[in-house]
Amino acid sequence: MNDRTQTRTGWLAPDEIETVRGQVPLIYVDAVPVRVDALGQLTHVGLLLRAMADGTISRAVVSGRVLQGERIRDALLRNLEKDLGPVALPRLPVEVSPFTVVEYFPDEGITGFHDPRQHAVSLAFVVPVDGDCRPAQDSLELTWLTPVEATRGDIRREMSSGHDRLIRMALAHAGVLP
Amino acid sequence: MNDRTQTRTGWLAPDEIETVRGQVPLIYVDAVPVRVDALGQLTHVGLLLRAMADGTISRAVVSGRVLQGERIRDALLRNLEKDLGPVALPRLPVEVSPFTVVEYFPDEGITGFHDPRQHAVSLAFVVPVDGDCRPAQDSLELTWLTPVEATRGDIRREMSSGHDRLIRMALAHAGVLP
Amino acid sequence: MNDRTQTRTGWLAPDEIETVRGQVPLIYVDAVPVRVDALGQLTHVGLLLRAMADGTISRAVVSGRVLQGERIRDALLRNLEKDLGPVALPRLPVEVSPFTVVEYFPDEGITGFHDPRQHAVSLAFVVPVDGDCRPAQDSLELTWLTPVEATRGDIRREMSSGHDRLIRMALAHAGVLP
Amino acid sequence: MNDRTQTRTGWLAPDEIETVRGQVPLIYVDAVPVRVDALGQLTHVGLLLRAMADGTISRAVVSGRVLQGERIRDALLRNLEKDLGPVALPRLPVEVSPFTVVEYFPDEGITGFHDPRQHAVSLAFVVPVDGDCRPAQDSLELTWLTPVEATRGDIRREMSSGHDRLIRMALAHAGVLP
Repeated sequence: MNDRTQTRTGWLAPDEIETVRGQVPLIYVDAVPVRVDALGQLTHVGLLLRAMADGTISRAVVSGRVLQGERIRDALLRNLEKDLGPVALPRLPVEVSPFTVVEYFPDEGITGFHDPRQHAVSLAFVVPVDGDCRPAQDSLELTWLTPVEATRGDIRREMSSGHDRLIRMALAHAGVLP
Repeated sequence: MNDRTQTRTGWLAPDEIETVRGQVPLIYVDAVPVRVDALGQLTHVGLLLRAMADGTISRAVVSGRVLQGERIRDALLRNLEKDLGPVALPRLPVEVSPFTVVEYFPDEGITGFHDPRQHAVSLAFVVPVDGDCRPAQDSLELTWLTPVEATRGDIRREMSSGHDRLIRMALAHAGVLP
Repeated sequence: MNDRTQTRTGWLAPDEIETVRGQVPLIYVDAVPVRVDALGQLTHVGLLLRAMADGTISRAVVSGRVLQGERIRDALLRNLEKDLGPVALPRLPVEVSPFTVVEYFPDEGITGFHDPRQHAVSLAFVVPVDGDCRPAQDSLELTWLTPVEATRGDIRREMSSGHDRLIRMALAHAGVLP
Repeated sequence: MNDRTQTRTGWLAPDEIETVRGQVPLIYVDAVPVRVDALGQLTHVGLLLRAMADGTISRAVVSGRVLQGERIRDALLRNLEKDLGPVALPRLPVEVSPFTVVEYFPDEGITGFHDPRQHAVSLAFVVPVDGDCRPAQDSLELTWLTPVEATRGDIRREMSSGHDRLIRMALAHAGVLP
């Protein structure tokens, strides 16, 4: 999960965000980028390789904060473009409800979803992506994996923060959990 | 709701379908075609004008039977192409779960959803459509309406079988019920 | 929407909450209390009469903030008990995903959901309630209404902040929108 | 999946059901019985031990056909009582939409969900059960398992028809997939 700072209304300086983190849970969006076939069936999930809040370089989904005054849909698109580049052509969902809500805590034992910096509540969406993805900013690489590959032990061990469970929850929602 | 007959495995002759209708509920898919903006937000719903099972010419959503051996996704695509033509470019949902399940009965009083011919259970989906729609077969016309227009009294009175409620349930699911 | 302050970890003094409100969106839960029959079908929705953030006395659903370190389920139960009393016996949902996400803004024009104090993102749930409800704290009264009554013009005009739409979205989700 | 026959309107004699099976997909309901804590969080799933359509004795969820003229809610309750006995006190869901739709085919390769007898489309629900369960009819035993136990290799190998995947999809929906 990343925070961009100071460049427009609603963005905070590092010390401000630190103070807020101690006061209220922050709202995030998580997006699982997927490739689908002509019938809408999920064929691949996209995993980023990137620097995580816990200091590891891990495979992870697209994730980022919802800013003050920003709509959920705008936050989703902004964070998708941040991590996948400007020509990924994500198809944002019509429905407003996330497929799951992820509760990240500094204490790993509460939900299994972990963020050492803060308590964050993240609305998670599965987002079909048609275009060309070019990982940008903190993301080093994007890999497309089949449902079988994405749930294999070696790949799961390359994820942190609980993202391996989030991937399997997304696959279950799409009816393709192996 | 329409039934195509006799042209391939899984399709039934008219007398066969009559017999089955008296024995088990039939499975249908209903699809609410929608236009969305770049953020995925619903801007318009598409209403067909067509001959209905109850003998009226009414505004209605895309609807049709799931055939023996046919997957839900294939039934959705086949029925969308039947009513919207071959270049409508529907984006089928990634998730397998419908936004609602409509139970049609010959007796209008049971659920408010009505089919004089049969008991049918229909899985209902909201389907964004990007392409050019050309109503075909039993459909005379397709009209794109804003959420406000689609829920106006005069438009609602042009729908039968409970489709005016189905439209409002789709708008609620998409967060744009006026 | 109400905020309780200063009584335990995660609760903030009034000036602190004011500062945070200008910095990040706050997370809320909205709960629509309902009565259901033996088959789980919604028969009545419960509307509170209470002082709202916009200064009106209006009919509204249960609503409240998610505190720092608090799980969504705990926030739901705490806010239900706050508004309905200790013996309401709410049945919290098994699933983690809300039926809709409500985005409240100080500017009414953005989503139609309005909170003059802040940008809030609220996870909305339909919660069956079996027990005896005794409105407490800021809530003056609880009234159980049928779906037809709850969507009547005169009742809708007694709601503010967009709660009349939220009620209809809940009824649509439960399959009983008139 | 079981069919009861001949005892009331809507039920079919064995030869009639055989004929229908060759003509149209049949509608079923699958119910995953669960125990929840005071916050609604899933703590255990209930697995039946019973004779399956494929001839095995396997662990499975509650499952059964929707009859002609029968509402989904009535079919759910009837099948829950058939497998769990009359005092299980299931809490049927308020929402009408299933958490997933399972497509069973005689050919195992199509979806991984398998019924050697027929093409069936099953609406799957997670159903909290408060009362005392007494497996009846074809069910030999009911075992309550934690999410960790229910997804262990040895337990998964005791399920057939794809029910091990259905259990994990239910756990994912409830946010407790290990």
